[in-house]
Amino acid sequence: MTTDTATTDTRALDLLADFPAIPEGWAYLDTAATAQKPQAVIDAIARGYGETYATVHRGVYQRSADMTLAYEAARARTAKFLGAESADEIVFVRGATEAINLVADSWGVSQLKAGDRILLSALEHHANIVPWQMLAERIGLAIDVVPMTDDQAIDLDAMAAMLTDRHKLVALAHISNVTGAVLDAKRATELAHGVGAKLLLDGCQAVPRIAVDVQEIGCDFYAFSGHKLYGPTGIGALWARKEILDAMPPWQGGGSMIDRVTFEKTTYAPAPGRFEAGTPHIVGALGLHAAIDYVDGIGLDRIHAHEAALVAQAREKLSAINSVRLFGPADSAGIVSFAVEGVHPHDVATILDEGQVAIRAGHHCAQPMMDALGVPATARASFGAYNNARDVAALVAGVERVTRIFG
Amino acid sequence: MTTDTATTDTRALDLLADFPAIPEGWAYLDTAATAQKPQAVIDAIARGYGETYATVHRGVYQRSADMTLAYEAARARTAKFLGAESADEIVFVRGATEAINLVADSWGVSQLKAGDRILLSALEHHANIVPWQMLAERIGLAIDVVPMTDDQAIDLDAMAAMLTDRHKLVALAHISNVTGAVLDAKRATELAHGVGAKLLLDGCQAVPRIAVDVQEIGCDFYAFSGHKLYGPTGIGALWARKEILDAMPPWQGGGSMIDRVTFEKTTYAPAPGRFEAGTPHIVGALGLHAAIDYVDGIGLDRIHAHEAALVAQAREKLSAINSVRLFGPADSAGIVSFAVEGVHPHDVATILDEGQVAIRAGHHCAQPMMDALGVPATARASFGAYNNARDVAALVAGVERVTRIFG
Repeated sequence: MTTDTATTDTRALDLLADFPAIPEGWAYLDTAATAQKPQAVIDAIARGYGETYATVHRGVYQRSADMTLAYEAARARTAKFLGAESADEIVFVRGATEAINLVADSWGVSQLKAGDRILLSALEHHANIVPWQMLAERIGLAIDVVPMTDDQAIDLDAMAAMLTDRHKLVALAHISNVTGAVLDAKRATELAHGVGAKLLLDGCQAVPRIAVDVQEIGCDFYAFSGHKLYGPTGIGALWARKEILDAMPPWQGGGSMIDRVTFEKTTYAPAPGRFEAGTPHIVGALGLHAAIDYVDGIGLDRIHAHEAALVAQAREKLSAINSVRLFGPADSAGIVSFAVEGVHPHDVATILDEGQVAIRAGHHCAQPMMDALGVPATARASFGAYNNARDVAALVAGVERVTRIFG
Repeated sequence: MTTDTATTDTRALDLLADFPAIPEGWAYLDTAATAQKPQAVIDAIARGYGETYATVHRGVYQRSADMTLAYEAARARTAKFLGAESADEIVFVRGATEAINLVADSWGVSQLKAGDRILLSALEHHANIVPWQMLAERIGLAIDVVPMTDDQAIDLDAMAAMLTDRHKLVALAHISNVTGAVLDAKRATELAHGVGAKLLLDGCQAVPRIAVDVQEIGCDFYAFSGHKLYGPTGIGALWARKEILDAMPPWQGGGSMIDRVTFEKTTYAPAPGRFEAGTPHIVGALGLHAAIDYVDGIGLDRIHAHEAALVAQAREKLSAINSVRLFGPADSAGIVSFAVEGVHPHDVATILDEGQVAIRAGHHCAQPMMDALGVPATARASFGAYNNARDVAALVAGVERVTRIFG
């Protein structure tokens, strides 16, 4: 293992100095919940409010025209980041949750009918379950659930056996927020398209961890949250194939999404504007642009390799502790979920917090997965580009302390 | 008038130094679209991302617990600012547009039925028209429209004559975004409640301009956008009376808004959490808190008096130009809409921009009002706490230049 670790170290990133909110000695291991922000993002936000601020799309004056260009440049940058065909395929939303609700309420209500079926997986985040349950109740759909493999990934073989031509949508996590299990997204697409179903991917954990190209994957909808991608809160994106987006009816009504309003009849703007009612989170889009520039500047391949090395170290060292049970595949991306036998995950997290190690304990907004695992909660350490081997060592030392206290 | 101006000057605010994005010599007169930000707000946002950043409601570790307190403190501060009974009556939303869509889709869909009627006014912003049109189409409602008075305010006498017990909701602008006309909100409430209808107020232009107390008004729903209140983009609030909010079904599904999720049956969290699916715009809430502290620190009575004086100066001087037509009542709050005879408002705005005066020209997201006025657009100068008599002089000089160019 010494050799492996040495190999790992040559790939290690050293970015901590870019992140002002991570003090020395604090192991922030909750990046799957939300990522810390590089100074470049904070500066872009401060510039947006403190130097160039104006509204978009409406002002005749120069400042507003400039801000409109900046806002639309953020859209184009997001499109490029995801490998979209054009900027028109990007709808800015509050985050992945809103993106999925938008698809359910607009595409779902208009394209699905009673008796149609939706396929989810047992490890989905509530954001990729509850909107479909609400849609199912509204229009009379059935929901089927793909089980997990023994190492808590989505079982695509089982999915292949379950799909029928009554399935109109498959909605899956690209990377599990609980275990970091990476979906074979191309195979999932082929399976879904094989029965004529659309594929929606919840990309929240994927976009900060692996290079994503929606055209290469071939999926139909892709959603992510900016704040998990080192960007601001309150902004995210929905990508959908242009012809799908063009056929979707309006969702929220208001300014900017209209063509012409009269009390007799209102007509709507083309996508993506049709789905962005009201003044958007202008500065959020600017901050997201800066965040994408930041991660692309490092390179997602390097970030992925860096996080993979940290996961490998953490899994190796945690598995050496007898009472620790690890969840998820060995090649999980950036996330390690675990349990300490006989200790509630909240107690694990509390004791780790005393040692300046911030992990998450709970159901991770994936209660059905907890039920399937037969546990009320897990402890979860999740890595970002700024973490390093010291953080892994602090995590492991903390878990060892837990086992001593409860041992 | 000399005496009046002198009186005015003693009340004048001098806040320009607080606003880093307003360079010297630039008359920013588009505050009704969005307000510039004081340094205190920019600093609060930078601190939120650069010092104290973490997720809310879930983290076991101290940083997240602290951020949750800060997020909930912003909710309590917003409640106090509006005179709400408790923080639980405040739902954080992207802005007023989302707030109104939330009320339409949750309260409207669950409480209204085919044949019920909604009453709007002819001067409403699209955000307070289109969601109701979409709801009307979905469940079969009728919409009635209160006309304007001769000076473009909502005609409450006409409203009194129109209301029937089939009207279940009245939705009105507290202050018109086109003219600054201030609604007699208490009378509107009495009229609506007199037939058993609920009253929703679009408070976007009101909260930055006048002191608002929802309990004193007696209304049922109140919506505003943070970015028009000197706060961040992407955040706003819906206030609703607690018993109304408690009875409203979920809107968007996802994390945080649930009680317990299973694939068989999902139960939901109480309000306001039930309406905040997904990671919220955490730092937006912190910035909104700082914005409210800022305006309350100055005092809305002072801001109102300051803007009233600027409006009076502008109206007086513009009305002295023969070809100018003024819209709205003489006591409009903070906003002056006008037309220059024979000149398209966009040309007015373009020429003003050349002279470093930023006004808005267009339909102001109120096309039905433009239709009622018989104009395609108006020019609109809107003031904020940072404006001063020099800005009025620059506006007037710009309009005089317009009349010379086109004269």
